[in-house]
Amino acid sequence: MDRSSRLHDAARPSVLALDPYALEVPTEEIAARYGLAVEDVVRFDTNTSPFAAENLAEPLRRFADRMALNEYPDTSYGELVAAIGRYTGFGAGQVVVGCGADEILDMAAKVFVGEGRSAVVPEPTYVMYDLVTRIVGGTPRPAPRPTPFEMDADAVIAAARGAAAVWLCNPNNPTGDLTPVEDVERIVANVACPVVVDEAYYEYCGVTVAPLISKYPNLLVVRTLSKAFSLAGLRVGFGLASAGLIELMMRVRPPNSIGTIAAALGAAALDDTAVMRAHVAGVVAERTRLVATLRPMVQDVRDTETNFLLWKVADPKRVAEALLSRGLIVRDVSGRPGLAGYLRTTVRTPAENDRLLAELRRIL
Amino acid sequence: MDRSSRLHDAARPSVLALDPYALEVPTEEIAARYGLAVEDVVRFDTNTSPFAAENLAEPLRRFADRMALNEYPDTSYGELVAAIGRYTGFGAGQVVVGCGADEILDMAAKVFVGEGRSAVVPEPTYVMYDLVTRIVGGTPRPAPRPTPFEMDADAVIAAARGAAAVWLCNPNNPTGDLTPVEDVERIVANVACPVVVDEAYYEYCGVTVAPLISKYPNLLVVRTLSKAFSLAGLRVGFGLASAGLIELMMRVRPPNSIGTIAAALGAAALDDTAVMRAHVAGVVAERTRLVATLRPMVQDVRDTETNFLLWKVADPKRVAEALLSRGLIVRDVSGRPGLAGYLRTTVRTPAENDRLLAELRRIL
Repeated sequence: MDRSSRLHDAARPSVLALDPYALEVPTEEIAARYGLAVEDVVRFDTNTSPFAAENLAEPLRRFADRMALNEYPDTSYGELVAAIGRYTGFGAGQVVVGCGADEILDMAAKVFVGEGRSAVVPEPTYVMYDLVTRIVGGTPRPAPRPTPFEMDADAVIAAARGAAAVWLCNPNNPTGDLTPVEDVERIVANVACPVVVDEAYYEYCGVTVAPLISKYPNLLVVRTLSKAFSLAGLRVGFGLASAGLIELMMRVRPPNSIGTIAAALGAAALDDTAVMRAHVAGVVAERTRLVATLRPMVQDVRDTETNFLLWKVADPKRVAEALLSRGLIVRDVSGRPGLAGYLRTTVRTPAENDRLLAELRRIL
Repeated sequence: MDRSSRLHDAARPSVLALDPYALEVPTEEIAARYGLAVEDVVRFDTNTSPFAAENLAEPLRRFADRMALNEYPDTSYGELVAAIGRYTGFGAGQVVVGCGADEILDMAAKVFVGEGRSAVVPEPTYVMYDLVTRIVGGTPRPAPRPTPFEMDADAVIAAARGAAAVWLCNPNNPTGDLTPVEDVERIVANVACPVVVDEAYYEYCGVTVAPLISKYPNLLVVRTLSKAFSLAGLRVGFGLASAGLIELMMRVRPPNSIGTIAAALGAAALDDTAVMRAHVAGVVAERTRLVATLRPMVQDVRDTETNFLLWKVADPKRVAEALLSRGLIVRDVSGRPGLAGYLRTTVRTPAENDRLLAELRRIL
């Protein structure tokens, strides 16, 4: 056997079983492929805010004036944690920060899952729960849903017997539906393992299970600045939980995974929410208009509590490809469990949404 | 048993065995504790560059003008990877990027170590090798050194029998010594597992084992922009290896762990190395002066190929505490294997180094 195949055998079996990660096609590459200007390519596929956080330009300029990037960030992230406290009401001992919500998921997988353990992943849901579970050597367990658009608390409770963790996305991505707080509480109260509730889209629905943390030490609520706060490019997420759960997360938290600029602008964003709230209101208004406009055009449009829509067409691959050739990137989720025919699109600015609608009228 | 203790039992045994992470004391806290101005506190403890990357102020200002942080970074990090290629000569298939070098170590631990495996950690060395090994459930294996300041290639080869990985820091932190390329090659050639060679301080010595990558698919070279490039606050590191090893790392690489600003400024820094090289030359000149000045003052000063010095005193705790009370933070490594009596200090600007020397003259 040669050196290369020996190297391959040195990898952990659970990593060898992973598909090589399918990277998203960069905007620049889409533009080049279809002969478009980069600024004419619009990402309807990543559920980001279409609005810039213009209120943070001034704090960012102050960094440029000082360029004090030669030192490491403050490992305790005191300023950011305090701002999270002001935004959520949770004290420092109940907060863990991460490089985007994804790193909070990675930490939770490290603490609770790992080799030979399993975790409940109620598909269809956010793809990272499956991935972080497998990366640490764990096995994802399904939890049947009555329809792809509903959670069955009893099915999750049954699936969680002997599991190391339960991953819930609420509202759910890619379906957009919200599981009622009572159902989440029933799950958290009736399983022996930690329950991770990813509330990445919280600001678009206003519903959170965070108040249950005082009752349930096994509840971890995950939030992000990548969606409503318009800061996907900065990589800041956080977790809220009991002091006991946070103490476990802190054992595996990398000391410096949030940059100095990200920590400072993240804190400023959390302390100045007026701009964020205005942007969210704009997206929510557009969401209502888009649902009403799309409904007569396609086979189905799901109600949503998020900043994205799930809608059904006869030929999703053709529609996605046709939109892509015009520079409109949408997410084809038609291969996901129960979602045959569905595409997912982010709610963007009125002008961008009009472009999407116009192209759709042409294509359909 | 109550819910809290059940939660604790839900954590993986290897995580329960970890000490809660000891966070570095923030600069602000040191200033408050000793009644000092924040700008009078100098970090001699983190081996960062004392110089700002002033050449990057203009690119950073351009971000503030556009504030396009609402979209995710390009997952492929094409611009950054291309700049790494221009700096190192390695093509895209032989490069993996990460949120600081620490994330490259985390990825390598995920791919190769994990539950029930072990990895060689030749103490005293950088503390993260022990930590990332334990976090994934692995067991660190010692490899005896003839002295704390030398690597014994044969001892490492012997320790690596049946191990999942070997972690080497070259030049070594906290000792500052460089293992000759031939010795590293002997290790890489004679072990069955991957060898991770962390060259965080490469730019201060100019010696690298990266050219060996073409011969050895099991060699992973780790670099960072946190030291010579003055960008510790941005969190950018990278790994260089055979295409086979990189392909395995890409299976566990988080899609978005480097922020948009970090990726862009990182690429700009790698393409404009004149400022970095001038800063390195300044540190190297100061290092020579400091070694010569310190030698008659203390019991021992080790030769170093890095931007930090290791020196010995009779009462390291007292000296470290006395310096701290004057706002000079040094690293007390006297509790590390073989390093009784030693303190570690970063080489900083001439004025900052003079302050350290003056305080030391007073204290010793």
